Amino acid sequence: MPVNLAPPRPEDLLPVKGVTLGVAEAGVRKAHRRDLLVIRLAEGTSVAGVFTQNRYCAAPVILCKEHLALAKPVRALLVNTGNANAGTGEDGLARARRTCVELAAAIGCDSVQILPFSTGVIMEPLPADRIVAALPRALADCREDNWGTAAAAIMTTDTVPKACSRRLSLGGKPVIVTGIAKGAGMIHPNMATMLGFIATDAALSQEALRQVLALATARSFNRITVDGDTSTNDSFMLIATGAAGTQTISGEGHPDFAALAQAVTEVAIWLAQAIIRDGEGATKFITVHVEGGKNEQECSKVAYAIAHSPLVKTAFFASDPNLGRLLCAIGYAGIPDLDVDGVRLHLGDVLVARDGGIDPAYREEDGKRVMQQSEITVRVELGRGSAQTTVWTCDLSHDYVSINADYRS
Amino acid sequence: MPVNLAPPRPEDLLPVKGVTLGVAEAGVRKAHRRDLLVIRLAEGTSVAGVFTQNRYCAAPVILCKEHLALAKPVRALLVNTGNANAGTGEDGLARARRTCVELAAAIGCDSVQILPFSTGVIMEPLPADRIVAALPRALADCREDNWGTAAAAIMTTDTVPKACSRRLSLGGKPVIVTGIAKGAGMIHPNMATMLGFIATDAALSQEALRQVLALATARSFNRITVDGDTSTNDSFMLIATGAAGTQTISGEGHPDFAALAQAVTEVAIWLAQAIIRDGEGATKFITVHVEGGKNEQECSKVAYAIAHSPLVKTAFFASDPNLGRLLCAIGYAGIPDLDVDGVRLHLGDVLVARDGGIDPAYREEDGKRVMQQSEITVRVELGRGSAQTTVWTCDLSHDYVSINADYRS
Repeated sequence: MPVNLAPPRPEDLLPVKGVTLGVAEAGVRKAHRRDLLVIRLAEGTSVAGVFTQNRYCAAPVILCKEHLALAKPVRALLVNTGNANAGTGEDGLARARRTCVELAAAIGCDSVQILPFSTGVIMEPLPADRIVAALPRALADCREDNWGTAAAAIMTTDTVPKACSRRLSLGGKPVIVTGIAKGAGMIHPNMATMLGFIATDAALSQEALRQVLALATARSFNRITVDGDTSTNDSFMLIATGAAGTQTISGEGHPDFAALAQAVTEVAIWLAQAIIRDGEGATKFITVHVEGGKNEQECSKVAYAIAHSPLVKTAFFASDPNLGRLLCAIGYAGIPDLDVDGVRLHLGDVLVARDGGIDPAYREEDGKRVMQQSEITVRVELGRGSAQTTVWTCDLSHDYVSINADYRS
Repeated sequence: MPVNLAPPRPEDLLPVKGVTLGVAEAGVRKAHRRDLLVIRLAEGTSVAGVFTQNRYCAAPVILCKEHLALAKPVRALLVNTGNANAGTGEDGLARARRTCVELAAAIGCDSVQILPFSTGVIMEPLPADRIVAALPRALADCREDNWGTAAAAIMTTDTVPKACSRRLSLGGKPVIVTGIAKGAGMIHPNMATMLGFIATDAALSQEALRQVLALATARSFNRITVDGDTSTNDSFMLIATGAAGTQTISGEGHPDFAALAQAVTEVAIWLAQAIIRDGEGATKFITVHVEGGKNEQECSKVAYAIAHSPLVKTAFFASDPNLGRLLCAIGYAGIPDLDVDGVRLHLGDVLVARDGGIDPAYREEDGKRVMQQSEITVRVELGRGSAQTTVWTCDLSHDYVSINADYRS
C-alpha cells in the first residue's frame, strides 16, 4: 500500500496542447499488459532531458543523448516497460535504433527525431519485433486526454500510476503543466529506473527549457537520488510545445520564467515524492531535513547517511524510536571534524538529542508517538553554518524483500 | 541459521598463557544472561587497538583511547553487552569511568590500566551499579580455559559464539593465538558494533604489536567495513602476554614477525568471516573480488557498491540470477571514466558479461546453478590495471528486517 498516495482522478489530469499519447500491448515481457507508450509532439516543440550517470547506461539513454545532441526537432518519444535494454552492448543499440527507425517511418520524420526509453529487467535482449508490431496500435490510440493511461503504461513494480497537473496563467493566457513518472520504487530510487516526462504548452527557448529542467531536477528527482549512484536508465524529460500561444520565455531574466519554473518544479516534486510514497514495501514517508551545515554537500552526506541506513529504515518500519541509530548514522556520515556537542536531532516536534547525547527531557513515549505516524520528519541541526538540504525516503519492510526477491518470477 | 558456521568446540579453543577470562550475569538489559566479561592480563602484557571513526563514538571508546595513550600497562578489559553507552554525553563517560575505577580497585591497579567496552542499544544510560555489583562474580570466574564462555557472553544478535585458535612454533617454542569476536551481524557490519579480541602468548614490542594489528585489520575486519562508516563502538584489540617465553619480536624485520602476523591474520579473517556468516538473516556467504583496477581504492568502490546494493542482496536471497543488478552496481560505483567494454563479470565459474553487456555464451541455467550455492564468489575484472581487493558480505532476507524491526522488543 503506498503511503498517502491515491491514483490520479482523470479530471485532474489536464491535456497539454500539442502532445498526444497512445498505448498498446506489445508483449515485451508479459502478455495482456499495456507496455508500450508513444508520445507524439507537435511541430515546434522543444525538448530537454537529464539522464543517468551510470557507466552501464542503457542503449536508449545512449540514443537519446545522441539524438538530442543533433538538435533536430523531436517528434515522438517511445517508451517500453518489461525490458531495460541495458547491459546489452552493441546488439542493444541496434535493437533500440530499429524501433526509432520504424516509428519515424510511421509518422514521417527522421529516426533521430525519436527519443527511446526502456525500463524493466537488465541484460536481456529487447524484443524489438514485438515493439515494432505494436506501433500502429499505439499510434492509433494517440490523443491529448490520455495522460492517465500513459502513466499506467509505464509502471513496473509501481502500484499506483503517478501523474499530476498544474494550471497557471502567463500574460493572461492559460498554461498547463502535466507530468507522469514511474519509479520502480526502490528504497534508493536512484538504483532503479526512474522515468519522468513533464510537458507544458508554454513556449520556451531551448536555453530556458534547460534552465527550468535544471532547477526542477535539483529540487525534486535529485532529492531522492545520489550523484553517481543512479540506475542504468534514469531519464527525466521536459517538453514545451508552445501551443498555448504565450510569449516565448527566453531565459531566466524573462518575466514569465519564475512562474513557469515554479509550476514545473511543483509537478516534479509531486512526482518525485509519489515515487517514494509508492516505494517498494513502503509504509512510511520520511522527510530528512539537515540544516546548519557549512555547505550543502555536508548536509547531503548526513541526510543520505540517515536515508540509506537499513537500521534506521527498519526502525521506522517497526515504529520503534530506536533513535540511537539516527545518531550513529550522523556520526558516520563522513564529516571528519563534526563536533557532536553542537548537533541537535529532532524527530517531528520532539527534541531527541543535544550536547553529544540524548536530551535529558526526551521521553520515550514522545518518540513513540511520532514514530507511529505515516509521515515523519527527521530534522538535524549541525550547528556549523547556514547551509541546508532535504531528502525524501521511506522505511524498509518485509515487502521490500519479497518484491525484490520475486521481481523476475 | 548462520551460513556454514558451527559453534566452536571447546577442545579447539586453546588457552593463552597470561590471559584469564571470567563472566557474570549483571542484568545490564535483561536478567539471567551472561552479559559481563572481564579479561585479566598478566604483568608485562602489551595491548594495541583500533577503534571506530564514528563521530558519535561511545564513551568506552573515548576512555580506551585515553587510557592507551597514557601507555601504562593494561591489566584488564571489561566488556558488557546490552548497552552501548553511546550517544550518552558526559554522563556516559562518568559511568564508564566508574566501572573502570571499581574494577581497578578490585584487582589492585590504576583505573587507567582498565580498558572498557560496551555493545548494545545506543543512547540509553549504562547501568553502572549493576555492572559494578557483578564484578566480584566475574573475577571469581576468571580462568585460562574460559574463551568459549567469553565468546558467548559478548554476543548480542549473534546466533553463534565466534572464537578460534591457531598454534604455531617460534624459535622451537609453542605459541598460541586465540581470538573471540561479536558482530551484531548487520548486513553492513560496519554499522553495527563489532568487537574483536585476539591474544597471543608470544612476546612483541609495542611497535611490532601495532604493525601486526594494522596488517591483520586491513585483511580482515576492514574487508567487511567502509572507512568512515563504522558504528559507535567498533573495537579490535590485540594482546601479547609474552608468557610463551619466546624472543621478543621487535618489528617487521624480526625473523618471527611474518609467522606470527600470519597466524593473527588467519584468526582475524576467520572471525571477520564468521561475523558475515552469522549476518542477521544471512542465508548466503558472498565473496566479492574485484581485480584489474588502477588502484585499490577504485576496486573497493566497485566491491562495496555490489556488497551494499539491496537489489543485489535480495537477488542472492532469492537465488535469482538477475545479474543485470550486478552490472548496474558496477556502473554506479563511481569510476567516472570506466570503460564498460573492458569489464568482465564472473559469477562463480561462469562468465556473465563482457564487451559492455551479457556474454553471448552465458546461459541462465549456469547462473542459476551458482546462485543456489550457499557460498558464492562474484569476480569483476575491470581491465584497467593490476590492483585488486576482496570484501565479504551476505544476502538480504526477510529475517534481516524481522531482527532489526524487533531488536529492542
